[in-house]
Amino acid sequence: MESQGVDLMTPQMVDSSSTSGAPQAFGDRLDQLVSQRSSQLVLGLDPDPARLWPHAIELARGAGDTPAPQIASGAEWFDPVAMQAARAVTHHCRLAIDSAGQECVAVKFQVACFERLGAPGWGALKESADYARQAGLLVIADAKRGDVSVTAAAYAQAFFGATPTAFGEVHGLGADAMTANPLLGVDSLEPLVQSARSVGSGLLVLVRTSNPGANDVQEAELADGASLSERLAQLVARLGAPGVGESGLSDVGAVVGATAPGRLARMRELMPSAVFLLPGVGPQGGRVEDLAPAFAPGRGGGLVSASRSIVFAHERDGGDPESAAQREAARLRGLAWSISG
Amino acid sequence: MESQGVDLMTPQMVDSSSTSGAPQAFGDRLDQLVSQRSSQLVLGLDPDPARLWPHAIELARGAGDTPAPQIASGAEWFDPVAMQAARAVTHHCRLAIDSAGQECVAVKFQVACFERLGAPGWGALKESADYARQAGLLVIADAKRGDVSVTAAAYAQAFFGATPTAFGEVHGLGADAMTANPLLGVDSLEPLVQSARSVGSGLLVLVRTSNPGANDVQEAELADGASLSERLAQLVARLGAPGVGESGLSDVGAVVGATAPGRLARMRELMPSAVFLLPGVGPQGGRVEDLAPAFAPGRGGGLVSASRSIVFAHERDGGDPESAAQREAARLRGLAWSISG
Repeated sequence: MESQGVDLMTPQMVDSSSTSGAPQAFGDRLDQLVSQRSSQLVLGLDPDPARLWPHAIELARGAGDTPAPQIASGAEWFDPVAMQAARAVTHHCRLAIDSAGQECVAVKFQVACFERLGAPGWGALKESADYARQAGLLVIADAKRGDVSVTAAAYAQAFFGATPTAFGEVHGLGADAMTANPLLGVDSLEPLVQSARSVGSGLLVLVRTSNPGANDVQEAELADGASLSERLAQLVARLGAPGVGESGLSDVGAVVGATAPGRLARMRELMPSAVFLLPGVGPQGGRVEDLAPAFAPGRGGGLVSASRSIVFAHERDGGDPESAAQREAARLRGLAWSISG
Repeated sequence: MESQGVDLMTPQMVDSSSTSGAPQAFGDRLDQLVSQRSSQLVLGLDPDPARLWPHAIELARGAGDTPAPQIASGAEWFDPVAMQAARAVTHHCRLAIDSAGQECVAVKFQVACFERLGAPGWGALKESADYARQAGLLVIADAKRGDVSVTAAAYAQAFFGATPTAFGEVHGLGADAMTANPLLGVDSLEPLVQSARSVGSGLLVLVRTSNPGANDVQEAELADGASLSERLAQLVARLGAPGVGESGLSDVGAVVGATAPGRLARMRELMPSAVFLLPGVGPQGGRVEDLAPAFAPGRGGGLVSASRSIVFAHERDGGDPESAAQREAARLRGLAWSISG
């Protein structure tokens, strides 16, 4: 048998695909990886080009002694300033993955933070996602896309699949999961679900977000007494029902903010098989200790996402960014593991 | 006075900014341009790389006799297949703008369709947007973004503003307007509104979309008897109140599908100053004839967006794509103008 190395868990290289013809279901892939790595922690990367780790800036300036990422320069589509910033962003992501990645099961890339650097930013996103995958981590694209079905199919090509063109196929980001916005209804989510499912990836649908504004729309009370987020939870459960794996986890999950722990038990009741992506730990006020209901279906039922609390740990705890990030990630990993057992 | 050429109406070059220090408000810019061009038609470009105009493919293969767009090749971040496809997409957009642009007031770019080509796709989006602007058209980025405030600020940099980096500033797309998803509430929209307002651009918030799935969430009945889309309409009116210009039009508008004309009058009642972006004319079933209520605040109150019905007009009407697109755009322009008077 040929070695599949660290790519074993990626959609492109799923072990079971060679025998059954279908990729292993997302929920099962995730559940196995959570066990293997003893972690439910997600490293959130939302790089601010004005606030990168100093070492990343040095590397982008060529002052470092590690090889530069494979980034081109000189292309007319590439603003040289954006190029250099994107190069620094890539270094920043690689350094953060090197430091904290071994404590994590996945990396969540905030797509907005790459998009603001234009074409080079998308290059940096692709390269950083590939780097995370090579480190054995799942890639979550935090894109919050949602559009009419024909457009949703285009987003599915961008994040999960490939795009046929007159010149050949163009491969997308190859994400293991992507966040999606359900405001446009079931027909806007279905192309994303089908595309994700066909490659063993997952869709994480916004149900109850971590920001104060979640109250404005998601907590609106409906005529039947439920909140809109409860309605969205039912929609997620329905879409995910055909995608429940042997682990009991589905390939349609939900984004449920860690900042509203009082809602978690109800959300779990409505979505018994959904993987919960739980952002909002740290600066936004969420506490890992309050997240136990998320893990009712098992250790893989919840993904605790932490971004600034890991990447900026040195500003709070002192020390160099790399060590502080590693320590904080280890602390959060242990905390989540202990409450999920 | 130096010539400002066709860039006069762009955020970067607004005439009034030199005297008052503030750019002309989006609603007023739009209203003037609608008058000048006698058009409320928006050319929707959602290029499918597998279904481009044949001439665009030829040009991308170098068989044409017009100069190729300024697109680089050979960069490591650039998959050569994606590069060539993006080059063809850029030609397609330029040809469509050359054919139908003179009948329109704006071009709406479906961002998903560029994003699926990765970094080269973003290059093609930028170049095509610049081309539309040079043709005197407003640029609408149909991105449907929506995220927590810190991320919304990143999207604002990507679409309206610029991003400070250690290496200098990176300019975003410079969109005149962008579509946004309000599911995350007021604090997710405010950074987009503020950023747009500061450069004389506008935000077009999803209120009642054109797809069948709009019924699933947007038409949910709330406890007070209103629909969720009515709640969203109130939110749009509130956010847009400080941005109403002399024309009576605001810089916070709404996406209201042309497929549900029965909802239009009520939407206009709730959002008296909002510019309505009206997608769904043509294959989705919407008819320009039914859109009169959108124009209650004046000719600039509604933007009729047509994509496939223009770009694929030749498949229905015969003839070459360029002439068929021009004819169909002229027909739709005239129709919208006649019902808005």
